[in-house]
Amino acid sequence: MYEHLASLQETFEHEIPLTRALGLRVDGFDDDTLVLTAPLAPNINHKHTAFAGSINAVVTLAGWGILWLIVADADMQGQIVIQDSEIRYLRPVKSDFTARCPLPNAAEVQTFMKVLQRKGRARLELSAEVWSDGQVCATFHGRYVVHLVAPAAS
Amino acid sequence: MYEHLASLQETFEHEIPLTRALGLRVDGFDDDTLVLTAPLAPNINHKHTAFAGSINAVVTLAGWGILWLIVADADMQGQIVIQDSEIRYLRPVKSDFTARCPLPNAAEVQTFMKVLQRKGRARLELSAEVWSDGQVCATFHGRYVVHLVAPAAS
Repeated sequence: MYEHLASLQETFEHEIPLTRALGLRVDGFDDDTLVLTAPLAPNINHKHTAFAGSINAVVTLAGWGILWLIVADADMQGQIVIQDSEIRYLRPVKSDFTARCPLPNAAEVQTFMKVLQRKGRARLELSAEVWSDGQVCATFHGRYVVHLVAPAAS
Repeated sequence: MYEHLASLQETFEHEIPLTRALGLRVDGFDDDTLVLTAPLAPNINHKHTAFAGSINAVVTLAGWGILWLIVADADMQGQIVIQDSEIRYLRPVKSDFTARCPLPNAAEVQTFMKVLQRKGRARLELSAEVWSDGQVCATFHGRYVVHLVAPAAS
């Protein structure tokens, strides 16, 4: 996954321009978890904490990003779309924050890839968290669908 | 409500700077519904449709805005915070879009205001929709809490 992180950053910047306003950075892929960060300043609200819409946008992109990495790691390209999501804002985000989306377990990823290769389309449910100051500040659950664009080179 | 719409626009711009990046406009209050609009251009994604994070941000603000109007209409000020939300992205947003959040029914608003005045804190659940090209493109449900800042002048 690591070798695709720079491409993911470029993809965010070029394909979703709002990520520049959010100050979104691909921070790394640690312990099978994609980590995105955003600074508080451009995302601040009336309470001097992060705006809920910014938190949701960053964590939605963490799910999107992990799917992008899964597909890129298989030398494929897909159109990734979110179908629905739920988010709980547990506590205020008072400084820079990170969205952490772990890879689903290997069996889930394997099933997802098989369906994607066979049908050209597959769904995956992802859970992610938003952290700031060492605490979980939001939990997120999203359902995504991927449409295959280019099959693996054979 | 109408007389507070310009103040709501100013509040968004000054207190939540990301609204400027979203191109958010308070469009009006029609048929007991707060209408916010956003242009596609700054919110576009890789599929040339609106980024899910932008859609969620705008509709989250529609719920926030209707609560702000309810509180302002009672000559009060509150800190409005979203606790959790669910969103379904039903179809792609291919052009400029609006988020429409109707006022809850009169009995719900009355109960909310009574609790707010008595306890200084009250919750309200709100449903809203995102429209583009004459179609509902997303549905949203959010739970908000308001903390009273300044009581009504007596």
